[in-house]
Amino acid sequence: MSKGSGQVKVFFLPSERCADIVSGKSIRQAARELDVGIEGLCGGEGTCGKCKVRIEEGISPRYGIESRMENLSPLTKTEKKLLTSGQQRDGYRLACQARIRGDIIVSVPEESRQVNQIVRKAAGDITVELKPAVRKYCVELKPATLDDALGDWERLQAELKKRFKLVNLTIDYRALRSLQRVVRQGNWRITVSLWMGREVIGVEPGVVENSYGLAVDIGTTTVAAYLCRLSTGDVIATDSMVNPQVSYGEDVIARINYAMTCKEGLEVMNRAIIRGINDLAGKTAARAGIKRSAIADMAVVGNTCMHHIFLGIDPGYLGQSPFPPALHRSLDIKARELGLRIAPGAYLHVLPVEAGFVGADNVGVLIVEEPYRQDDMVMIIDVGTNGELIMGNRDRLVSASCATGPAFEGAEIRYGMRAAPGAIEKGLIDPDTREVRFKVIGKDGGNTELDQVGAGGICGSGIIDAVAQLFLAGVIDRTGRFNTDVDTIRLRKAEGGPEFVIAWAGETSIGQDIVVCQQDVRNIQLAKGAVYAGAKLMMRRLGIDKLDKIILAGAFGICIDKESASVIGMFPDCAQEEVYAVGNAAGDGARIALLNVDKRVEADRRAREIEYLELTVAPDFGEVFTRAMWFPNMEDSFPHLKHLLPGFKQGLAKGREG
Amino acid sequence: MSKGSGQVKVFFLPSERCADIVSGKSIRQAARELDVGIEGLCGGEGTCGKCKVRIEEGISPRYGIESRMENLSPLTKTEKKLLTSGQQRDGYRLACQARIRGDIIVSVPEESRQVNQIVRKAAGDITVELKPAVRKYCVELKPATLDDALGDWERLQAELKKRFKLVNLTIDYRALRSLQRVVRQGNWRITVSLWMGREVIGVEPGVVENSYGLAVDIGTTTVAAYLCRLSTGDVIATDSMVNPQVSYGEDVIARINYAMTCKEGLEVMNRAIIRGINDLAGKTAARAGIKRSAIADMAVVGNTCMHHIFLGIDPGYLGQSPFPPALHRSLDIKARELGLRIAPGAYLHVLPVEAGFVGADNVGVLIVEEPYRQDDMVMIIDVGTNGELIMGNRDRLVSASCATGPAFEGAEIRYGMRAAPGAIEKGLIDPDTREVRFKVIGKDGGNTELDQVGAGGICGSGIIDAVAQLFLAGVIDRTGRFNTDVDTIRLRKAEGGPEFVIAWAGETSIGQDIVVCQQDVRNIQLAKGAVYAGAKLMMRRLGIDKLDKIILAGAFGICIDKESASVIGMFPDCAQEEVYAVGNAAGDGARIALLNVDKRVEADRRAREIEYLELTVAPDFGEVFTRAMWFPNMEDSFPHLKHLLPGFKQGLAKGREG
Repeated sequence: MSKGSGQVKVFFLPSERCADIVSGKSIRQAARELDVGIEGLCGGEGTCGKCKVRIEEGISPRYGIESRMENLSPLTKTEKKLLTSGQQRDGYRLACQARIRGDIIVSVPEESRQVNQIVRKAAGDITVELKPAVRKYCVELKPATLDDALGDWERLQAELKKRFKLVNLTIDYRALRSLQRVVRQGNWRITVSLWMGREVIGVEPGVVENSYGLAVDIGTTTVAAYLCRLSTGDVIATDSMVNPQVSYGEDVIARINYAMTCKEGLEVMNRAIIRGINDLAGKTAARAGIKRSAIADMAVVGNTCMHHIFLGIDPGYLGQSPFPPALHRSLDIKARELGLRIAPGAYLHVLPVEAGFVGADNVGVLIVEEPYRQDDMVMIIDVGTNGELIMGNRDRLVSASCATGPAFEGAEIRYGMRAAPGAIEKGLIDPDTREVRFKVIGKDGGNTELDQVGAGGICGSGIIDAVAQLFLAGVIDRTGRFNTDVDTIRLRKAEGGPEFVIAWAGETSIGQDIVVCQQDVRNIQLAKGAVYAGAKLMMRRLGIDKLDKIILAGAFGICIDKESASVIGMFPDCAQEEVYAVGNAAGDGARIALLNVDKRVEADRRAREIEYLELTVAPDFGEVFTRAMWFPNMEDSFPHLKHLLPGFKQGLAKGREG
Repeated sequence: MSKGSGQVKVFFLPSERCADIVSGKSIRQAARELDVGIEGLCGGEGTCGKCKVRIEEGISPRYGIESRMENLSPLTKTEKKLLTSGQQRDGYRLACQARIRGDIIVSVPEESRQVNQIVRKAAGDITVELKPAVRKYCVELKPATLDDALGDWERLQAELKKRFKLVNLTIDYRALRSLQRVVRQGNWRITVSLWMGREVIGVEPGVVENSYGLAVDIGTTTVAAYLCRLSTGDVIATDSMVNPQVSYGEDVIARINYAMTCKEGLEVMNRAIIRGINDLAGKTAARAGIKRSAIADMAVVGNTCMHHIFLGIDPGYLGQSPFPPALHRSLDIKARELGLRIAPGAYLHVLPVEAGFVGADNVGVLIVEEPYRQDDMVMIIDVGTNGELIMGNRDRLVSASCATGPAFEGAEIRYGMRAAPGAIEKGLIDPDTREVRFKVIGKDGGNTELDQVGAGGICGSGIIDAVAQLFLAGVIDRTGRFNTDVDTIRLRKAEGGPEFVIAWAGETSIGQDIVVCQQDVRNIQLAKGAVYAGAKLMMRRLGIDKLDKIILAGAFGICIDKESASVIGMFPDCAQEEVYAVGNAAGDGARIALLNVDKRVEADRRAREIEYLELTVAPDFGEVFTRAMWFPNMEDSFPHLKHLLPGFKQGLAKGREG
């Protein structure tokens, strides 16, 4: 029953959250207000169809709600396109499309529920000389007397000069405000935190030994934080979270759109990430048993869009040619200027960016892998929601960005999902029987005990395995087309074309078959083709015809099977033992910059030196990309894949097969 | 009628302000909440008796109030002491003492109304080479292209280097955030504001020529602001206001107490002064026809206590021996850090302080008068609510602070008031008839057309004149005692001792005789004795026995009659033509520092060099002070006052006169 005055009741199942909201809002908006997680990979654009919800008809005596389909706006064109007629009949709507005009009960099916993504951004072992920006000095001051009533700050400076030869110091305004109290609390013995040898950013009573810093990697999807002890370099706590901006758009383009089209969109997303990082700072500090205010330094990486939004800088220009960033160089600003609640006087170091689409995260990878110190011709692939590529060696380095789209993260895949509990993350198809074996991520993030049950969808690594296996089993051909002649009950013709059943309904938690369809294969082809084409154009720019080493950076790199990636042709031919994953190198880069200020200087220098290659302006980009969509490529040879692709010619392919 | 639930009605006359307030508050608190100005020089301590109000008994049909004396807490001891029995009978109460327990109507008599003080802090002519901290540079940038997608900030830096040889620049975070928009708004032509040749603090689209700065003098009682055009040095608008902290205590000691005893007292006073300066910035900008955000620099002076509170630094330690300040040196901080709303990236320069009681205002005087460049032995007296003294020449300089108390500002004087409309500011007593002629400050700040009417009290210069004249007329003797033998109807014996009528009730606006009483004379003696004793001890430290020049700085210096000041012995003997007033030299010092960065460096150097003399630790301080309380001094000779003091011995006085 609607309550006059524009207020209506909405009730979500199974979370049982209920509230009065203003009539006219979409179900998605209502869910966001009530903190009910509903999937949505397109940022509410009505293109992904992931936010399916079911409307329950009837009366809930407990909440006094009479829920009716008529209490929603009529089906939109988008819904008619993305919902099957069966779903429409069963009361399904898209949460981003349906607007609430009267009381309703909304049931969020499991496949539409946003779950916390399993974060694999772990802290790798890094070796770096300790040279942090913040160091502590303990001094004892002579108490003021009538004959020597020198100001506390001048008294402190005199002592720091005498004992440690520190001169020309300044003091942070907040530290100055607390100085007198701290000096007397410590009975004239205090510990100062000095930043870059020049600014006192904090004072503490008595002797305080340890100081701490936080390295933060702001991914489009995941934000990871590493709390380090600056005096030893140890990581003493880590935590990560789904980037809270995900609600405003799944990828950087969706976020740029949100910032450009929504009033205060930038502020909303900026506040969301700041709040998120504050949470991570608080959680890691609590876990390590320190106060959040003991965190005296911070180093941050992120792609250029994340970097801009984090700094409150309009990312709009990044979305328009020629995509210039607001700045390239690294930046040191007071953390409090951004609303970050760590030590009040602490600075924040944001690593430089290389270009509009090659960000500070890539610079982080750069200073970890140091290709500029190698003779080998290296290619570094950092695939997140966007693909960032580095290629070269000590002589010359180029970088590029490729629009992989979100397929590698499970989006734009019919049964795609994030690498969360329930996701199929590995698969194997018997080339003879075409029977499937798969592994599902368990509730705890590990694989389920019984691997082949409870699947809710397929994540990025799972879909790459599936496509590679389908190709190797002859179910799809080199162009990506399904070979409908193959005799297996799993391959069937559906409304939208052929599809292959990976998991039968009984093996899932969603009560329906999980399939890979033709469009899924196409989307993977587009994604891997983009990386491959980028590599080819970069090789051409460098004048080389082979790669010595391929490094897969990013969380994704750890998960994917490098053989599957090689088989589908995600990158040019390379010795398999020289293809390896390095984990979250961007996060490692942030840690290195946190622990060593020389690496900050190096990052600035290397980011300036690297040549950014705008791939799309190459005149034959389209052709290169088209050829790269084939498995593994239309014409390139793959001598190192002989053992995997026995049935294929290793030379140039002269025409289409199929 | 009281309204249950602890809410009572209070109605103020003649302002007709009315509100429901929580029962139990004092009338003073209620008045503050309703913005009804009630005098109060002791900060609510119950010592000044200035906040007399009258309670109206009866019913106000308009506001539905039945006002009764019983609706207030009983008379306190303080009230019994400070209110005459007649006043008590007539329904008078002290606003700081009486607590409201039921509905009341409060009438605020004229003498208790807080009026806007006449501010005489005008901008004097100063000559200074223009070398401001902020300069503007206009550049045209090459638009970004796909081949040259350099970040906007790096693009700007490259152009500034090419055109103006400016290197190693940083950019303020707020300026950075607006950069891309501004660059495109200006069609790639922008004007940058550069601070100290190293930080871009603001960017504006197109060509912008002028930049502005604000010089601020935070006095204990008065805050003055001078808006200057930085490119010409012109003062384009000035304004001033009563320091809004006055409500929390009249002098620095009262404010220190307020900060120490009231929870959030410091924050409250800090916010009050910041809001006040924001108001002054807004008003002066409006008057000059510019935006407040066009103010790109600020220089601030103030005594050490005002300096600390302005910076949000606890002034508590300034109130306890050895009175060390938090810092001596000048400070450059972002204006926004303090909540000052001028240009978002603007800095604020706070001049250095010399000691706990010789503040940045004194340093301002120092760089204006430059005694360190003179051969003459100079004494500079800056008397505000506190007295700050400088003495010396190019060879050596000492400074000191003396506790004059607020008597020179009309406080602690029975009919004392600030230099506001209605104040008697000049007086003359005929030595034969003892008849009085006086001048009253008019509504417009000038003297009234009919000088001898409408007096509401006596301000500082008036009381000095009155005491000097009473002394010259033989009504008081050299020790300050009333000579009750003098035959005049104006001299009469009252409850508290003898008193002299300056203005008869008919000549006043308050309906009662305005008198000078014995205690008033004593308070003036204490104040002038403090200055004189300070001067004596400083002369001793410098090893000199005469002064070549006496400079009276501060608003007070302009108002007082230097002959009257000489006659009562405010300072040692000096040729009358070498005693002169320089107006608000502290404010001039702020302006000089605003316009020339070299003077900032000079201020820091000179403030460090000057020797601070803690007067009260001299073993014979008491004796020197006691002798200095006499008119003009117990034993010193005043050869330059021969014409004014014909009847007195000019040599040592051997004993008391009667």
